[in-house]
Amino acid sequence: MINQWLNVRSLLTEEQLQKIYKYEEVEEYRKYHPAQVIEHAVSMERWIGIPEPVKQSYRMVGRQTPLQRAYRLEKAWGTTNRIYIKREDTLSNGSFKITSALPQAYYGSVEGKTAVITETGAGQTGVAAALAAKLTGLNCKVYMVRSSYELKKLRVLMMKMYGADVIASPSDQTEAGRAFLARGERNGSIAFATSEVLEEIAQANGSINIAGSLFDFVLTYNTVIGLEVIEQLTSHNIEPDIVIGCVGGGSSFGGFALPLVDYYGERLERVICTESTAIPTLTKGEYGYDYADGEGGGSKLLMYSLGYDFRPPAMHASGLRYHAAAPIVSHFVNQGIIEAQAFDETEAMASAIELARNEGIIASPESSYTINAIKKMCRQYENRNIVALLTGNGQLDLESYGGFL
Amino acid sequence: MINQWLNVRSLLTEEQLQKIYKYEEVEEYRKYHPAQVIEHAVSMERWIGIPEPVKQSYRMVGRQTPLQRAYRLEKAWGTTNRIYIKREDTLSNGSFKITSALPQAYYGSVEGKTAVITETGAGQTGVAAALAAKLTGLNCKVYMVRSSYELKKLRVLMMKMYGADVIASPSDQTEAGRAFLARGERNGSIAFATSEVLEEIAQANGSINIAGSLFDFVLTYNTVIGLEVIEQLTSHNIEPDIVIGCVGGGSSFGGFALPLVDYYGERLERVICTESTAIPTLTKGEYGYDYADGEGGGSKLLMYSLGYDFRPPAMHASGLRYHAAAPIVSHFVNQGIIEAQAFDETEAMASAIELARNEGIIASPESSYTINAIKKMCRQYENRNIVALLTGNGQLDLESYGGFL
Repeated sequence: MINQWLNVRSLLTEEQLQKIYKYEEVEEYRKYHPAQVIEHAVSMERWIGIPEPVKQSYRMVGRQTPLQRAYRLEKAWGTTNRIYIKREDTLSNGSFKITSALPQAYYGSVEGKTAVITETGAGQTGVAAALAAKLTGLNCKVYMVRSSYELKKLRVLMMKMYGADVIASPSDQTEAGRAFLARGERNGSIAFATSEVLEEIAQANGSINIAGSLFDFVLTYNTVIGLEVIEQLTSHNIEPDIVIGCVGGGSSFGGFALPLVDYYGERLERVICTESTAIPTLTKGEYGYDYADGEGGGSKLLMYSLGYDFRPPAMHASGLRYHAAAPIVSHFVNQGIIEAQAFDETEAMASAIELARNEGIIASPESSYTINAIKKMCRQYENRNIVALLTGNGQLDLESYGGFL
Repeated sequence: MINQWLNVRSLLTEEQLQKIYKYEEVEEYRKYHPAQVIEHAVSMERWIGIPEPVKQSYRMVGRQTPLQRAYRLEKAWGTTNRIYIKREDTLSNGSFKITSALPQAYYGSVEGKTAVITETGAGQTGVAAALAAKLTGLNCKVYMVRSSYELKKLRVLMMKMYGADVIASPSDQTEAGRAFLARGERNGSIAFATSEVLEEIAQANGSINIAGSLFDFVLTYNTVIGLEVIEQLTSHNIEPDIVIGCVGGGSSFGGFALPLVDYYGERLERVICTESTAIPTLTKGEYGYDYADGEGGGSKLLMYSLGYDFRPPAMHASGLRYHAAAPIVSHFVNQGIIEAQAFDETEAMASAIELARNEGIIASPESSYTINAIKKMCRQYENRNIVALLTGNGQLDLESYGGFL
């Protein structure tokens, strides 16, 4: 079991950080997140100890997750490369998201908070928040974008199984929600849901928000993923050559790849993050200051972005529907240490179906882009160790695969 | 990794077996199952070696599965007992069923068979057969009871993800199916689907059926579950006191509990199998000779049964909707070594929701009866080691939980 998180901010110089966060207003965050979390968010310490209760919860939900060699996929693709898959799909809640949700809920409970109030799109963040809240003794209320609420019924039920109160947003429970509804905005958006959450937290004393992506502290808490991989590779005397993961906001990729970039450095031949050609943040976006929020609220951050007003098209990998990528991941892409590759949905989903048929693993649609990148690398390279991150399982996304079968 | 299966027939005397199988016609089975499987079915050898390729496939799908202490559930129930849960829900296909499907498919492939043709009700057997076939290089066709086919869309998609051809039964692909349809029997039943499967196997050379339950060889292949538990308990110096699992046909329970009964013998205080009060096979059924088949086909076996013409009511735990229980499990119940407890669905589902909220584990509706029995034992006992089997995960059954939330 990993005992410390790697603080992703410590991988940059003070100067680099100041440039990235020139317009950031940390004070604003203090209203919505536990004080200890904000301390981690601004800390420059290299290592942050993981509290024993968080380690216990990590074990309970299935950490460490397996790093599995995909022998049959290698054989099917006739490759001499060795494919290692980090299986975050095996976690109880179905994705890596619990890894950062648990410490956020834990620090909230330690600081006397009684409830988590959070927003969710397709539901993965909400499911993780619901479970994390329950496991740390907090109540949980989730504002879920109504269009998803009506479409992703099983994720709603899963949040309710974990005891959360799930509200379709815009709702009539907040002023913001009532205003959106009055404007005829029934379907909602993640920005609307966030407005409802922030309003309620500001009013309800003792509540915190659980951030699902983008923030450095989320990446830092997720470094357990990459640190486990290093331990697993080392114990089998394996040196990785090629590292692959997908990027939506960048929190799974940051938690997975940044510890590897730090530990193996230039011994890594390629570090690849994958995305959809429909939302090509890192392959076609601009590196500059932009809002993280889809409505232009909050601080501007230095990152790759398609523009805060970019309206992502509908797609099955809803976790990749975000206009920007986390500042520190963006930094490493801009430095040329991490490269980005975009794939077409049809090609990606077909590769995920090959994974299912060869290894029995049903990947989240988000991870299908990663599987496709592995396949592409297998055509270009020989005899490499390829290490790839599977962010979640696709059992509740089986309908997404329906059209590709 | 376990190297040998425990042959469940070897736990009985020749005399006991002859009595149980007085009317059994083994020759009939040879038409539908690999020769090696039939050899195991009639063998009296105590141990059967697990072939290396089967062990590799077991690893690939997630064996060994964890045995997890449920600390938070213990705390929630204020009990001094220690609860250990064997987590078959963590397998790639979502349930224990793959454990017996893999060797059946493997022996078929070794004997030159090219396809698996199998029947399924709610889909768990079909999903396991589809994956087992794919992992051993066989084609797979599943006849699925039409009423389930229309209801359990995600399980249909999962079989298709694994490359299976899924047919709603009765179908127009077999004479039997066409006859059922002509009689206006559109919804189908597991007996109808079996008729279609057997007809097609009899005609299509090179096909085998994958049995999902009831047969001794299925229980024998599933003993990996119980043998893993013994290894896991022993490595932590734990002696079990109370053993609990659910019984539909009895194949998960047999594979889990019989190795424990054999190894710990009278040191076990209680061995409990759970069922639904709606289908009280072991608590209210008769011990006598009856047909395994719901239409009165095949051989009569000595077992607990509600009568082959018993028509089980609709219920969420569709894996428990069977009129009888495997002969060897029935034998141990009849001897008083295993006891049966029946619970009401509402009570059982409520206990499963408590499991989800305390441990983050979403259990199959079948396992909810087991969780409820653990709860009951926690009220009656102090300071015991309770070891219970969770047969599968309930992510694709979340709608079943909907009404109880």
